[in-house]
Amino acid sequence: MHDRDLHYLREAIALARAGMDRNDGGPFGCVIVKDDEIIGSGNNRVTSSNDPTAHAEVVAIREACRALGSFQLDGCTLYTSCEPCPMCLGAIYWARPDRVVYAGARQDAAAAGFDDQLIYNELPLPPAERRLPMEQALRQEACAVFEAWGRKADKTAY
Amino acid sequence: MHDRDLHYLREAIALARAGMDRNDGGPFGCVIVKDDEIIGSGNNRVTSSNDPTAHAEVVAIREACRALGSFQLDGCTLYTSCEPCPMCLGAIYWARPDRVVYAGARQDAAAAGFDDQLIYNELPLPPAERRLPMEQALRQEACAVFEAWGRKADKTAY
Repeated sequence: MHDRDLHYLREAIALARAGMDRNDGGPFGCVIVKDDEIIGSGNNRVTSSNDPTAHAEVVAIREACRALGSFQLDGCTLYTSCEPCPMCLGAIYWARPDRVVYAGARQDAAAAGFDDQLIYNELPLPPAERRLPMEQALRQEACAVFEAWGRKADKTAY
Repeated sequence: MHDRDLHYLREAIALARAGMDRNDGGPFGCVIVKDDEIIGSGNNRVTSSNDPTAHAEVVAIREACRALGSFQLDGCTLYTSCEPCPMCLGAIYWARPDRVVYAGARQDAAAAGFDDQLIYNELPLPPAERRLPMEQALRQEACAVFEAWGRKADKTAY
């Protein structure tokens, strides 16, 4: 790991602390870097914005994508103060940065009261076996829309 | 499953089709219902808004939470045209609705070109074993922020 990586990772940790001190939300921060420039940053704003998706990584990804005018983060590195939760990791896979550098581990977040591990445990289970009740219906009606997507000539894939 | 469930699930499927027809993004829709009233809805807007997190469920969760003035969806049912991807499922766990009703399966989405399965496969792996390069550093500096969170007297937990 290069010194620049540690510099940007410390920026993410500083955002975590500053957001916590402002009562924006939980103690998490993130910066996204392309060509040695920060193009997006964020800290957790769940409780202050009443948005359960406003984790640091999601906030930073949205900002970086706005800055690039793209829904993909090619050539970017995402620095986050803690190992991403499953929601954020999913967002990272969809945004497709080149790499991720993180500081705290999920166990550290759990010790601080953030139970990412429950979600990590639930996701691999079949839907019917999760603690969250999940039921399926109307599969054929949904598939009809997917078939229309397959036939659509002017679609933008992602 | 009740007739009302099928009604709302068809609404989610209709949003999927309408969003696709408008070229908002992929063919996915979602409605969130509390006390037999739709309090949030959304369709995929990834490509039109350059936001890789703008999946139908995330859009609907953000809208429903704004409507409720809360970061939690107590007493709500989330209806989605397709089994949620890992990002959306994580968002659902954080938002904590009472239940989820879905139509298409992840295999149907994959057949239409949306590779949620890759992310489902990657998430359970240790970070160092994923296709996405992930590296850790400065763990103690991150933990110092978590310790400050633990001592913080005026925090809002979530």
